[in-house]
Amino acid sequence: MATPTPLLKDELDIVIPTIRNLDFLEQWRPYLSPYHLIIVQDGDPAKVVKVPEGYDYELYNRNDINRILGPKASCISFKDSACRCFGYMMSKKKYIFTIDDDCWVAKDPQGKDINAMEQHITNLLTPSTPLFFNTLYDPYRKGADFVRGYPFSMREGVPTAISHGLWLNVPDYDAPTQLVKPAERNTRFVDMVMTIPKNTLFPMCGMNLAFDRSLIGPAMYFGLMGDGQPIGRYDDMWAGWCCKVICDHLGYGVKTGLPYIHHSKASNPFVNLKKEYKGIFWQEEIIPFFQQIQLSKEAVTVEQCYLELSKLVREGLNGVDPYFTKLADAMVTWIEAWTEINSKSSKVTPPVKSK
Amino acid sequence: MATPTPLLKDELDIVIPTIRNLDFLEQWRPYLSPYHLIIVQDGDPAKVVKVPEGYDYELYNRNDINRILGPKASCISFKDSACRCFGYMMSKKKYIFTIDDDCWVAKDPQGKDINAMEQHITNLLTPSTPLFFNTLYDPYRKGADFVRGYPFSMREGVPTAISHGLWLNVPDYDAPTQLVKPAERNTRFVDMVMTIPKNTLFPMCGMNLAFDRSLIGPAMYFGLMGDGQPIGRYDDMWAGWCCKVICDHLGYGVKTGLPYIHHSKASNPFVNLKKEYKGIFWQEEIIPFFQQIQLSKEAVTVEQCYLELSKLVREGLNGVDPYFTKLADAMVTWIEAWTEINSKSSKVTPPVKSK
Repeated sequence: MATPTPLLKDELDIVIPTIRNLDFLEQWRPYLSPYHLIIVQDGDPAKVVKVPEGYDYELYNRNDINRILGPKASCISFKDSACRCFGYMMSKKKYIFTIDDDCWVAKDPQGKDINAMEQHITNLLTPSTPLFFNTLYDPYRKGADFVRGYPFSMREGVPTAISHGLWLNVPDYDAPTQLVKPAERNTRFVDMVMTIPKNTLFPMCGMNLAFDRSLIGPAMYFGLMGDGQPIGRYDDMWAGWCCKVICDHLGYGVKTGLPYIHHSKASNPFVNLKKEYKGIFWQEEIIPFFQQIQLSKEAVTVEQCYLELSKLVREGLNGVDPYFTKLADAMVTWIEAWTEINSKSSKVTPPVKSK
Repeated sequence: MATPTPLLKDELDIVIPTIRNLDFLEQWRPYLSPYHLIIVQDGDPAKVVKVPEGYDYELYNRNDINRILGPKASCISFKDSACRCFGYMMSKKKYIFTIDDDCWVAKDPQGKDINAMEQHITNLLTPSTPLFFNTLYDPYRKGADFVRGYPFSMREGVPTAISHGLWLNVPDYDAPTQLVKPAERNTRFVDMVMTIPKNTLFPMCGMNLAFDRSLIGPAMYFGLMGDGQPIGRYDDMWAGWCCKVICDHLGYGVKTGLPYIHHSKASNPFVNLKKEYKGIFWQEEIIPFFQQIQLSKEAVTVEQCYLELSKLVREGLNGVDPYFTKLADAMVTWIEAWTEINSKSSKVTPPVKSK
């Protein structure tokens, strides 16, 4: 029997930020090995990251980032998984799947391994329905449809930009919730994919995430976190808020739900509390700020939207903390770097390339 | 072992519209028999509706409705299940559960009977979270919580006004979809309850629905459908659009998802097409109309909101069809009747009362 070509084999890169070994890729081999990996090594560049054999990959450490971006490397976080967005920038593919190195293959209620990649691709290749809620959830799924009362003019949906997958076992809780419920595990498999409605913000987790780079790539900036910054663990949240308002503005959809991965290890809640603590009170002002954002009609590309957003951040959040001025600057730098890397016939040779 | 008192036993009425027998109540006996029923008999008042023994109920037919409401009875539909809202008006309880007489007890994936009533009550007694999306869905459910990035100031939620349950087996499709997919059955049990976000409309189905009458009752008007009207099968949709904008305005939540009931029989798609066909194109204008509605700050009660909405309908939808002027009138009549029945020490004796 001939093996079918994996879906989107030449159109999708897998981006993995890591500080440790990549043993988890052994378990993912049946699903991920056909795809090209972009590994962003965080922390000490002298350390050697071992990639399981048979995987086709390129690997960037901090020295590579500095060499490739020069002064613009300042927009890429260090000692924080936010550095992964450098991989999004370097990719030449239409789609990205990003996954954390402590995420394993989950099992469905029948005990069968879940092919997360396949579900993400299905999510991205079918439309979203952000304009009106469908009570049977994703109407494009087998066995489902639009229910009575769903306007026919909206049934073609809109292009899907983001597929946000979930986690069984260790849930993605903040430090206070981790501290209060150290033993809580997510065991509920919810067999569902849905579109997050227009003008509704959500907490986007970067652990198990796929997106269409051609639709939303330049907005997938994970901000300034970690080393030298007053905050951590808000990298994916920041990207989520920015991406959602831009998707709403440009008419793209965001899906959440399936696929699940198995999240193995809760990070240390005491360390997390230190990283998060400014975010915990800042977010009380950031969320209302994002909820009232109106981008102008002139902003018709993601880059234009993002630059407009950076101005609004500079004006609207500077009062919260001077950090946001620095972040607004970094947002501009990010777009400049993205444009440079992605527009010219940029021939940047990655230092480690293998297969 | 002492049997525990059923939840909200003296605070909840079950409203059932019917034109046929009520055999389905036999199967529901373990769950529904502790509660009081309000049966609204549609069609020929001379026909006798048999209620299974042991149920405590009151029953209203068209003659009763005319006698009780006098000229205001014009706002209650005839020959359409929209007449059920008369039961909401007559109830003296805080909560309502309404169910169709072709809905049976569904089974969960483990083959266990689902106690729909219990789940609706849980939904109504726990808060909703319409202001920000929680990716693990209902954060108040056992084993779940708010995820990282969810603002702490929003974690108390808001009171839940509506619990919208779903259907296994025959899905709630419109006539065109029924015609195209006559054999499609909903077999996917999605183990989930969620809040429909603020400013997002949804198609509310009246088949398996519970609500807090004290919070949203006066807006639960099922419109003018059936006999003498140009439209049918949009009664619950109309109530859903009106309720959702009023819930959003007053800060109440709407949940959808669990519990499932088993919907036994698809109605005739050819008959449905005739009933729906004006609705199918009207809804293309009604939905954008409802999406842009802003109620005034002066509207602080449901009645005030609903009267304001009736004015907006009169102005905004009259251009679609003169029917909407009649509907706007009926909305006013409904509020007048509701107020009359519910405010005075109204001693209306139902004609049939039994135990």
